[in-house]
Amino acid sequence: MTRWKLTIEYQGTKYAGWQRQDGGIKSVQQSVETAIYKFCQQQIIIHVAGRTDAGVHANGQVAHFDLDYGDRELTPHDLRKALNAHLGSEPISILKAEETHDEFHARFDAVSKLYTYRVLNREAKPSFQKNLVWHIRRELNIDAMREGAKHLLGSHDFTSFRAAECQAKTPLRSLDRLDIECVGEEILFHAEARSFLHHQVRNMVGTLAQVGQNKWQPIQVKRVLDAKDRTKAGPTAPPDGLYLVEVRY
Amino acid sequence: MTRWKLTIEYQGTKYAGWQRQDGGIKSVQQSVETAIYKFCQQQIIIHVAGRTDAGVHANGQVAHFDLDYGDRELTPHDLRKALNAHLGSEPISILKAEETHDEFHARFDAVSKLYTYRVLNREAKPSFQKNLVWHIRRELNIDAMREGAKHLLGSHDFTSFRAAECQAKTPLRSLDRLDIECVGEEILFHAEARSFLHHQVRNMVGTLAQVGQNKWQPIQVKRVLDAKDRTKAGPTAPPDGLYLVEVRY
Repeated sequence: MTRWKLTIEYQGTKYAGWQRQDGGIKSVQQSVETAIYKFCQQQIIIHVAGRTDAGVHANGQVAHFDLDYGDRELTPHDLRKALNAHLGSEPISILKAEETHDEFHARFDAVSKLYTYRVLNREAKPSFQKNLVWHIRRELNIDAMREGAKHLLGSHDFTSFRAAECQAKTPLRSLDRLDIECVGEEILFHAEARSFLHHQVRNMVGTLAQVGQNKWQPIQVKRVLDAKDRTKAGPTAPPDGLYLVEVRY
Repeated sequence: MTRWKLTIEYQGTKYAGWQRQDGGIKSVQQSVETAIYKFCQQQIIIHVAGRTDAGVHANGQVAHFDLDYGDRELTPHDLRKALNAHLGSEPISILKAEETHDEFHARFDAVSKLYTYRVLNREAKPSFQKNLVWHIRRELNIDAMREGAKHLLGSHDFTSFRAAECQAKTPLRSLDRLDIECVGEEILFHAEARSFLHHQVRNMVGTLAQVGQNKWQPIQVKRVLDAKDRTKAGPTAPPDGLYLVEVRY
C-alpha cells in the first residue's frame, strides 16, 4: 500500500465544489476519483486539504489517497500522466503526484493555506476572465482597503465573517497575511492562515470592497469584526474570483 | 458625421476571425457591426487595424467607423457602454471609444503593431488556459530560441514565413522586436513591426519552437530565412496562443 499526495489545479466554474454531492452536479472529487478508478479499477476515497465551494478554483489544491498496486512498479510520472489522460477534457489537471509517508494527511497536516481573490476593476466587461474574477466596474480605493485589511490581521473571533452553515467548532482564527496587490487592471487579495472559516475569505473581500467603493470608512472593518455578527459585515463576494493557491506542510 | 475609434478586446476561439464571412460561423466584425446596428439602427462598415485569423485573440485591436448621430449628443462613455451592452455575453469588449479626426484610418495610419504569442510550457494539461495558449509539454530551451530569434530581427524577405494565401504585394518586412519572456510556466514571444505577412508571427513561433525542442540549431533559423521557401520553415503555430496586444499610431 502506498500513500500518494496529489497537487491539483482546477477551474471550479462547472462543478458543485470539491466535495462529492448526492445531487446531479459533478464535483471535482468525483471527477478525480473516477479518473483513479479508470486507471486501476479501484473505488478509492481521496482526502483533500480544503473543500472549495461551487465555482471556486484551485492552482494548488492538495489531496491524498492510498493505493495497493500489487507488485507492479508505479512511478509518480506515470501516475500523473495516467490520471490526466483519464481526466480528458475536464478543466482539472494533476500538477504533481508524489509518494508520501503513511501518516501524511492532506487536511490535518496543513500548516497554512494561501488563497488569492481576483477582482477585475475596470468599466468594460471581461472577454477573457469570465467566471474567473469578480468584475467591479467602480474604481476601488486601494489605500482605504489596505487600511481596512490591517484590522483583520492576527488572532480574532471571526464570527462576523463566518457563513451560517460553517461547521467549525470555534470562530477563532489567526490571519497571518492579507495583502492587496495591483496587477494591471486586476486587484489581488492574498490571504494566508492555518485554516479559514467557511466563506471567510469571500466575506472579508466583500467587506473590503465596501470600503474600496467608499461606502464605508476603513475603521468600519474593525467595528464589523468587534460586532461578532454576520449581518454587520459586507456581502459575500462571488466564488468566481477565489483560488486556493497553495497548501504548505 | 463623426469618425469614431474603438479599442477592442476579444477571445477569438469561437469566431471565424475578424473579417465578416459569407459562411455560417460568426466573425468579430459582424458581432461589433451588429452591436452598432442595435444601438443606432444603421448598417455601418467598420475598418480594422489587423484582420486576425480564426481563433486568434486581441487585447487591443483598433477599428474606426463613421456615424451620423444627428443633433443628439453622444459621449465616448455612452457609446462604449451601449455597444458593450449590445454585445451581451459575447467575449468581445469595447475597452475605449474616442472621437477622432476625419482622416484617421485604423489600418493605414498604424505605425506599429505588437503581437504576443503565449506558450504554456509544462507537462500537465491546462485547466485555465484552454484555447488561450499553445501547450508544449517538452521543456523548451529559451537561450537557443533567443539566439535563433536574433536572425529574424531587422529588414528581410520573409517568404519562408509567409502563408500561401498571403495577399501582400511584397514579402519584405522589417521586424523591430522579437523578445522571449518567461512568466511562471508561460513563455511569451513579443513581436513588433509596422506590419506583418499573413501567418508570419505563427510561422516564426513554430520555427523557434523547433529550435526550443533542440530539433534544430539556432543557426537553422537564418538558413530558413535565407532559403525564401515556406517549406523550409517550421510548422505554423496554432492560433490559440496569438494576441494582437497593441496598435500604435
